[in-house]
Order: sequence, then C-alpha cells, then structure tokens
Amino acid sequence: MEFIIRDAKKSDVKSILKLIKELAIFEREPNEVILTEQQLIIDGFQDQPKFKCFIAEIKKEVVGIALIYPRYSTWKGAAMHLEDLIVTEKHRGKGIGFALFSKFIKYSYNQKVNRVQWVVLDWNQSAIEFYKKNGAQVLNDWRVALMDKNAIKKFVENESI
Amino acid sequence: MEFIIRDAKKSDVKSILKLIKELAIFEREPNEVILTEQQLIIDGFQDQPKFKCFIAEIKKEVVGIALIYPRYSTWKGAAMHLEDLIVTEKHRGKGIGFALFSKFIKYSYNQKVNRVQWVVLDWNQSAIEFYKKNGAQVLNDWRVALMDKNAIKKFVENESI
Repeated sequence: MEFIIRDAKKSDVKSILKLIKELAIFEREPNEVILTEQQLIIDGFQDQPKFKCFIAEIKKEVVGIALIYPRYSTWKGAAMHLEDLIVTEKHRGKGIGFALFSKFIKYSYNQKVNRVQWVVLDWNQSAIEFYKKNGAQVLNDWRVALMDKNAIKKFVENESI
Repeated sequence: MEFIIRDAKKSDVKSILKLIKELAIFEREPNEVILTEQQLIIDGFQDQPKFKCFIAEIKKEVVGIALIYPRYSTWKGAAMHLEDLIVTEKHRGKGIGFALFSKFIKYSYNQKVNRVQWVVLDWNQSAIEFYKKNGAQVLNDWRVALMDKNAIKKFVENESI
C-alpha cells in the first residue's frame, strides 16, 4: 500500500484532531484533549502559524501526522521540536512513522537548526529504540515540568493578593 | 539589595551569554555552549525574534534572566516554554529566581496560553521543590530525546544514499 507525505492543509484538521485523540488514548489520557478543529485552524492555518504539520496519506485518507514548531536552545541556538508523531494503529509497521520522522529531520536540516528534539514516554520502548537507531540521544536526567491553565490562574491570583 | 525585572535589550547580550555559560558549568556541560553574542542579537533582537528574555538587574548589573518562547500542545493549544531561568550564584536566595519565574507565569497568563512548561534536572531537588511549591507538576515518565547538528547531518546523508 503506497503512501505519500505532504504538508497539511486547512481541510485536514478533522483528520489531524482524530489522530491526536487516538494518541491521547494510547498515552492513557483520553480526556486531556481540549483542542478543537476551529482552534487548530486559527493556530495552524492562518497568519503566523504556531506550528507546521506534515500528513501521511493513503488513497486520500490521512493515516499519520508529524506536528512540529521551532524552539530555541541557549546552548545551540535555533532548534526544531517534534510535538507529535502519530500513525493510526491499522497502518503501523509500513514505514509511515519513519517517513514522517525523516521528513521532520530533513525539513529541520533545511531550516539550518542546530538541534531537533521531542519527548518520549519511558515505557514506550519500541519508540525509544526507533529513535536511538536513527541517531537520537534519549536523556535520562531531565524531567518535564508544567502548569496547566488552572495552575497558572491560581499562581497569578495568589501573587496579586 | 533591591532588584528590578525588565525586558532584555540588545545591549544585554553580553551579560545574557555570561549567565548562560554560568548555568552550563552548573549543569556540568561547560563546553556545550556554541551560541555567540552576535547570534543572540540576530535571533532575539531583530525582526521575528525566536525568544523573549526578561532581565533581573541590581544597580545596572544583570544578575538573572528568564528566556522564554511559545510552544504548541496538541492537547491544550498555545503554550509557553521557559528555556532558562538563571540567577548568578552570588545573588541567589534573594527572591530573584522567584521574581523571574513569576514574570514568566504572568506574561504567559496575559498571552492566554493553556500551558507553561520547562525541564528540570532530576538531581536538582531544590529546583523541583521550588516548582512544585508554586503549583507545577513534574512528570516522571517522559524523557527528552534530541539530535544535535552532527546527528541531523548524518541522518540526512544516510537517507540520501
């Protein structure tokens, strides 16, 4: 079954969101996706897009995405981040994930960034092996820290007292 | 000793780079900083800046920075990233780190992002406690993966054969 890799278009947002939700289920957090199709259009397909998305397609069906955006390293300068690399379950094992990953790396290379990065779940051993095989380092001593909208609001309200 | 927090200016790049190098030594990677003053000016203080930087200043001396940029979450939408939060060693313990962190959170709140995030070294227990006390989650199951410039180049060359 042949697939193609192409840039995402506005009309892909329904398919993109479906894949994002499929990944959230795999990552055991199905209720955490608050993003909507409308917001995806505003954020990605209007002036000053906040991300770029590549699509893997088989016979007009979107079967995978790589969603990326620039970052900045204070050690290395310009960097590129792979936020999500998703291939729908029934089309795994056909090299589609590799093709999307490869597209991300080549695009980053053309953008002349000095680093590409992403995160991976520590129990997702097959993904970790895939990345290492392709030349990535997986760092064991860094932890991701974050605050969601509620925590941000709470912090600001407390600070304003 | 009183300090102020302000936006960084082009003339601060020398001080910013000095603090970046100080942090790299603390993180046991002093030789990893390839960024230069000139590149910092191009990347941060011209059209379409790749980052925003806040400065902590005591009597015209730059004693701390918070360097941030936007990111994008496929679950939450617009997000903000804190790449570096640095206070020079002799001025720690005076609330400067908290003031810079607070500036980052408030700025993000005003930008209406749904998430703020950063990374922390797992052995930096005082930083982890500081972040948790202020409402952050520290995730244990995500690992940072990356490829440097050489790995990117090697991947692209192999792929092109």
